[in-house]
Amino acid sequence: MDFHEKTCLPCQGGIPALTIDEAARISLNVPAWRVESEATRLVRDYKFRNYAEALAFVNAISNVAETEGHHPDICFGWGYATVTLFTHKIQGLHENDFIMAAKFDRLFAN
Amino acid sequence: MDFHEKTCLPCQGGIPALTIDEAARISLNVPAWRVESEATRLVRDYKFRNYAEALAFVNAISNVAETEGHHPDICFGWGYATVTLFTHKIQGLHENDFIMAAKFDRLFAN
Repeated sequence: MDFHEKTCLPCQGGIPALTIDEAARISLNVPAWRVESEATRLVRDYKFRNYAEALAFVNAISNVAETEGHHPDICFGWGYATVTLFTHKIQGLHENDFIMAAKFDRLFAN
Repeated sequence: MDFHEKTCLPCQGGIPALTIDEAARISLNVPAWRVESEATRLVRDYKFRNYAEALAFVNAISNVAETEGHHPDICFGWGYATVTLFTHKIQGLHENDFIMAAKFDRLFAN
């Protein structure tokens, strides 16, 4: 099964966040993303040709986020979107975040 | 004419940005917004009940932005959206930014 085909399982808390080493290893599955803030955030910058394309992407990934019940933080505007993933319940990264990242990348057509 | 009913005229550059005093005065029309970064940015935080409502608002204001040809920068996620306005051509604030802010506020139903 490809990484993006995995399902994002609800994270109920009570489990540890990934360590920096674990996050670095799993991040090889989504090389365009960067692990930030002592491995508590997963971030990618996307570029677009205008505002409308950025907004369309924001809606596309939001649809996936609602389906999976795992929501990103998004900063976007004319020609760009920066997407941040983390798992709120554990205030850090979980495999789910990397699965979501892979799913988002599949929606990026540029 | 109410402030939100004004039309955002294209800013071609070559005119000065509003001064701090001018920005402070005109900001009285949109009291929920704050003038930041030495009067070069106009910012408001909106709160929502969930991700879907935040996204719906983002789409609503983006529709206005496309119509007016004046685009905000938006950071949003579960339950919130922070909207930043400024006029790129003059790297500061113009009356247009405050008109857009008033139009966005009209779309905020909460």
